[in-house]
Amino acid sequence: MLFREGKLCRPTSGMAAGYAQANLVVLPKDEAFEFLLFAQRNPKPCPILEVSEAGVRELSIIAPGADIARDIPKYRVWEHGKLTGEYTDIVKFWRDDFVSFLIGCSFSFESALLEASVPVRHIEEDRNVPMYETNIPCTPAGRFHGNMVVSMRPIPYAQVVKAVTVTASMPRVHGAPIHIGDPAVIGIRDINRPDFGDSVTINPGEVPVFWPCGVTPQAAIMASKPGFVITHAPGHMLITDVRNVDLKD
Amino acid sequence: MLFREGKLCRPTSGMAAGYAQANLVVLPKDEAFEFLLFAQRNPKPCPILEVSEAGVRELSIIAPGADIARDIPKYRVWEHGKLTGEYTDIVKFWRDDFVSFLIGCSFSFESALLEASVPVRHIEEDRNVPMYETNIPCTPAGRFHGNMVVSMRPIPYAQVVKAVTVTASMPRVHGAPIHIGDPAVIGIRDINRPDFGDSVTINPGEVPVFWPCGVTPQAAIMASKPGFVITHAPGHMLITDVRNVDLKD
Repeated sequence: MLFREGKLCRPTSGMAAGYAQANLVVLPKDEAFEFLLFAQRNPKPCPILEVSEAGVRELSIIAPGADIARDIPKYRVWEHGKLTGEYTDIVKFWRDDFVSFLIGCSFSFESALLEASVPVRHIEEDRNVPMYETNIPCTPAGRFHGNMVVSMRPIPYAQVVKAVTVTASMPRVHGAPIHIGDPAVIGIRDINRPDFGDSVTINPGEVPVFWPCGVTPQAAIMASKPGFVITHAPGHMLITDVRNVDLKD
Repeated sequence: MLFREGKLCRPTSGMAAGYAQANLVVLPKDEAFEFLLFAQRNPKPCPILEVSEAGVRELSIIAPGADIARDIPKYRVWEHGKLTGEYTDIVKFWRDDFVSFLIGCSFSFESALLEASVPVRHIEEDRNVPMYETNIPCTPAGRFHGNMVVSMRPIPYAQVVKAVTVTASMPRVHGAPIHIGDPAVIGIRDINRPDFGDSVTINPGEVPVFWPCGVTPQAAIMASKPGFVITHAPGHMLITDVRNVDLKD
């Protein structure tokens, strides 16, 4: 409500502890079927939490009553693949053929890792999580295609199995890792130079562990240069009414 | 290939042991987005194994090279909610806007139950599985709505937990039970009079266990009386190239 009323505009990291946050993509219905198909074929990088019906701004599943055009702190508008503006609400852009996709976010499983005493380095170092393009192809759907983007967290050898089992129990927020160990195997040339986010320290006795990342669907959409797309601004997520523990299903 | 060439036409139960079979629904693209949304919102009764792109007859994921218009032994054509004919191929009906949905089938988890020494009564008694309408609402999507249809298998008390864990590990073919015990709780008045299929014997010391059923999506589609739908004929499924053991993921 604070975001809706314009009384607050900030990144949502650390807000509403225990509740899941979600990525936003808004597409015209003409492209929505193919994007839903892309997500259905690639559920690990694109775990869908809710999809609206065409033209409907009010959410009903993960945040009943939320207005998707006003309740995210900051939005980005993209035209033909280029960022054309940032806005605190998108009411003036709304169209009857817009479909909203809310996509699970790794904030949820990071909170589960911390509860299980598994360290999350980028939180310790107060940086953004390092993300990398890989050579792992997504299954294409219509105009949408591309390789998987992954996030990386260094995990002590003795805790790798625990990190796998904790995250595997949460498939609706990316689930288990896609790769453990040698970055070159999945096409990453320099672990210290991520394609998105910040690099983090990998200590002796730690293994880089890679999870499917929610940047994948945005990259697949932008590669197709759609006429008009709205997304959240990085870090400015939808705060849902769903508790992270309820995503273990 | 035998089905495609018209050399064979029979129910597929018991064929190609170890390989998953799938239900078929073909809808025009105009309705496909809402149906994909219905399935996405109700993954337990509607576990999607593959969705084609509009107009594409060749499958690529669960049965690469299969022709969805010829490789099922028997099809049904429905117009405005009424069955208008059965056919061994649907090439003459095919349109450029048709989207095919292949939906997981409980044959896969029954084979896992049998391997785990859990009895499957309707197989023992050589009957069709009993299925019931319930009072459990599906989450609606556009024109598609309705209550969940469930299948029932009587399980000895001592094996109920095993039946849950074995099927829970296979979410892509309906997964864990939706209800265990008293049928009245989910709106079933007479366990001996199923709404679809045959009744089976429940022995002393056995509990009725209910799983989400693939009849649910067909019922939701038919309730909306769409202009034109093609499905498989009951028992005449698509035989896929996916092994049941590979659905545990």
